[in-house]
Amino acid sequence: MIETYKSIPKPESDEIKQRLDIAHQRLMEQQLQMKENQLPVFILFEGWGAAGKGTVLGKVIKNLDPRFFSAISMHDPSPDEKRKPFLARYFAEIPEAGQFKFLDAGWMTEITKDVLFDRINKQTYKNRVNSAIRFERSLTDNGYLVLKFFFHISHKEQSERIKILQDNKDRSWQVDDYDVWENDHYDECYKVFDKYMEDTNSSTVPWNVIDAKSRKWAELQVMETIVAGIDVALKNHTLTVPLIQNVFPLNRTQKLKDIKLNKTISDEEYKTQLKDLQVRLKALHNQAYLKGIPIIVAYEGWDAAGKGGNIKRLTSALDARGYIVHPIASPKPFEKSRHHLWRFWTRLPKTGHFAIFDRTWYGRVMVERLEGFCSENDWQRAYNEINEFEKELSDWGAVIVKFWVHIDKDTQLARFTDRQNTPEKQWKITDEDWRNRDKWDLYEQAVDEMIAKTSTTYAPWYILESNDKKYARIKALKILISSLEKALKSKK
Amino acid sequence: MIETYKSIPKPESDEIKQRLDIAHQRLMEQQLQMKENQLPVFILFEGWGAAGKGTVLGKVIKNLDPRFFSAISMHDPSPDEKRKPFLARYFAEIPEAGQFKFLDAGWMTEITKDVLFDRINKQTYKNRVNSAIRFERSLTDNGYLVLKFFFHISHKEQSERIKILQDNKDRSWQVDDYDVWENDHYDECYKVFDKYMEDTNSSTVPWNVIDAKSRKWAELQVMETIVAGIDVALKNHTLTVPLIQNVFPLNRTQKLKDIKLNKTISDEEYKTQLKDLQVRLKALHNQAYLKGIPIIVAYEGWDAAGKGGNIKRLTSALDARGYIVHPIASPKPFEKSRHHLWRFWTRLPKTGHFAIFDRTWYGRVMVERLEGFCSENDWQRAYNEINEFEKELSDWGAVIVKFWVHIDKDTQLARFTDRQNTPEKQWKITDEDWRNRDKWDLYEQAVDEMIAKTSTTYAPWYILESNDKKYARIKALKILISSLEKALKSKK
Repeated sequence: MIETYKSIPKPESDEIKQRLDIAHQRLMEQQLQMKENQLPVFILFEGWGAAGKGTVLGKVIKNLDPRFFSAISMHDPSPDEKRKPFLARYFAEIPEAGQFKFLDAGWMTEITKDVLFDRINKQTYKNRVNSAIRFERSLTDNGYLVLKFFFHISHKEQSERIKILQDNKDRSWQVDDYDVWENDHYDECYKVFDKYMEDTNSSTVPWNVIDAKSRKWAELQVMETIVAGIDVALKNHTLTVPLIQNVFPLNRTQKLKDIKLNKTISDEEYKTQLKDLQVRLKALHNQAYLKGIPIIVAYEGWDAAGKGGNIKRLTSALDARGYIVHPIASPKPFEKSRHHLWRFWTRLPKTGHFAIFDRTWYGRVMVERLEGFCSENDWQRAYNEINEFEKELSDWGAVIVKFWVHIDKDTQLARFTDRQNTPEKQWKITDEDWRNRDKWDLYEQAVDEMIAKTSTTYAPWYILESNDKKYARIKALKILISSLEKALKSKK
Repeated sequence: MIETYKSIPKPESDEIKQRLDIAHQRLMEQQLQMKENQLPVFILFEGWGAAGKGTVLGKVIKNLDPRFFSAISMHDPSPDEKRKPFLARYFAEIPEAGQFKFLDAGWMTEITKDVLFDRINKQTYKNRVNSAIRFERSLTDNGYLVLKFFFHISHKEQSERIKILQDNKDRSWQVDDYDVWENDHYDECYKVFDKYMEDTNSSTVPWNVIDAKSRKWAELQVMETIVAGIDVALKNHTLTVPLIQNVFPLNRTQKLKDIKLNKTISDEEYKTQLKDLQVRLKALHNQAYLKGIPIIVAYEGWDAAGKGGNIKRLTSALDARGYIVHPIASPKPFEKSRHHLWRFWTRLPKTGHFAIFDRTWYGRVMVERLEGFCSENDWQRAYNEINEFEKELSDWGAVIVKFWVHIDKDTQLARFTDRQNTPEKQWKITDEDWRNRDKWDLYEQAVDEMIAKTSTTYAPWYILESNDKKYARIKALKILISSLEKALKSKK
């Protein structure tokens, strides 16, 4: 892969100058077009230490409007970041619509360093490569332009540059220990870098290897690649994205209409079991904490199905420092202008913690689908995007449990009426609830499709029959407990 | 990759039966829908010898209408096939619109065998993997559903099956030497297969590893994957495909309006040079023949620019057994119902031979674009598809020379008028020529874009200034000669 830089012959310096002027001019115009079309651009600068990434970055942005771009240096993950999934801190950095974001070293550096310092095994490397490919593809599918550059210089060139920097006391801070180590292990690094680039060179987000020996020529290659990339992105702006085949193992599921809702539990039985189960859950949470297992519980269900009460019975068993409940409303403007999963990637628990979502990322294929808040292509793609998201969480070691809190239409009506007639419950019922109720059949169809397409073996859906709320609470606790027991057992 | 088969738990046999009935019923219905929508399906069966590919294939097709599918066993390439690019014989087999094609072993078997028997080096392996990925993606982009299955059985299971087959004299023919070799080298093969599948597992055409221990279960996995795949294909039917970034090294090119057309050559000079150059070309062709270098010459140009006469001066230097001229007209119905490059993949020369195309695969981005014979998305994608096609030819070792035979509008008018006024030339001028002339400016724009986007370093465009046809002929011969000399030198 690295060798591809040789295929583009370097022009004369006059020509470089002339083409640079054109490219900078074009980029200025394109920035406005991207702003106008609300398209985000995510540009990754990778490469050898001392290859001049920073210098070129400075040139690339020199004519850009600073309100519409930002540049970030990523460092090795902090201890807290290490307690999140690998992709989380990169997902957090994706730009907003209409913005440019430049990353000086990103997930490539992290993955290849982990390989070079023997911090991950082969299987984890493969998972990381898959994560990177899916991350980049998913961004592209959601309208992002993602560009990856690798700045290449030879061993000799790197040695010389490091020496020059070290000898200059104003600039010696630019060389860190890793740069020196990299230079000492150039051949080894070359192999690892080259393999990583081969492994992650997809057709949607290919690698651009930059011959970085000459700064001007490096700048031109980067500039012209960005300009060409934006041209493509502007053309793709109005296009749809073909769906891809499902590759995740699915459980067989039932349709909602086939769920028996007559299940109940006596008050006495409920009290005894609740106490017992909560004690067990608390104990299991302790063990999960010690083993660093994160737990993600996703609640979806009909209005008035009893989600809130169900969640309460769960959290009241837990140490308050070990969980967080995220009530999910419709996305805020700054959330809406990013990938639809961004607001969930940034709400993940640390290892050993619970994150409980009261409504979830499944809004995409329910309310957003039915209310037309996203395009048909968007929600059709989302099933796979969600399966990929949950696969990341599962590979990270998370226990994922998803509940559909289910009631029938009559029960909902009774509860709505009760709420309306009881002054202290009136805040719980809105016009929107009634409007949603009118669309019950459409929702039921969407929920059936959602459950069928996203009930993977690693993140299954469970139906909580909640005509009897108590029955549903006990069932939720039991499922959670058995899921945790299974995870703890396999992590021995 | 092979391990993924473990993630899907095998159901009870009653359930398998029931689900099989549903899947077969669905496939019958889907076949009609695919026929109706003119969508082609290309299904690849790979896997261990004796894993039961043939048996399952027999089950899959049992309810299909035989007019709309065909199944083919691919074997090791013949000596003649080895003189074509690696992908050629697979490209030749792609199905027609509305048809199903099943391939029992395909490019995976060929590539992995070549690795196992040390017939290709690492770089060639990488090229092959790239070829496979691009081939599969390009088919998908052009509306094909491509499904890849790998039938997996354990070493023990394979040994037992081979023994049972060998002991049964009616079935022992089903075991060949390679199956036995594969069984003897199971672990080695496993590694090579697994790596190949990792390397070619794209999001558009992922691998489906089938647990093939139980035939019924294997059949169900294949059937349900096909059914799900067709569901996706039917949804994608009306979608467009986002363009991808160019990754091929491009030459800088001039716009047609900047080409000086006043270049001429005297009759005397022409005669001397023509003779000399033809002698040299003949000699070079001999050398190219001996070294097995294929030569592909592509002619495009304005009507009446002098393509025919130019080609004649070239072919008259060559041994008639060593070249073929392909006049390219608009595609026939059986060509139109396949990938637009199919009719060129099936017209490639053997190693050491010339193929000269009088009009080419560039029709897609000229006449088909301007006359609306394909969608905008189709011709926009075609630049990259063509660059990929020519990259295949170049990696195979071909010399590729592309000529744009250029004249100005006045010269064309003079030649048209002359043709119309000269009885023996009247066949050469049609109403269509006049209609095309009316669109000169649109064509010029399309040609400029074509040349800028497809003049790669490995398959460059050359402009032949043909207001003076003789000048253009001499220039063509010189370019061809120097391209051949360069190729011969680098193949020393």
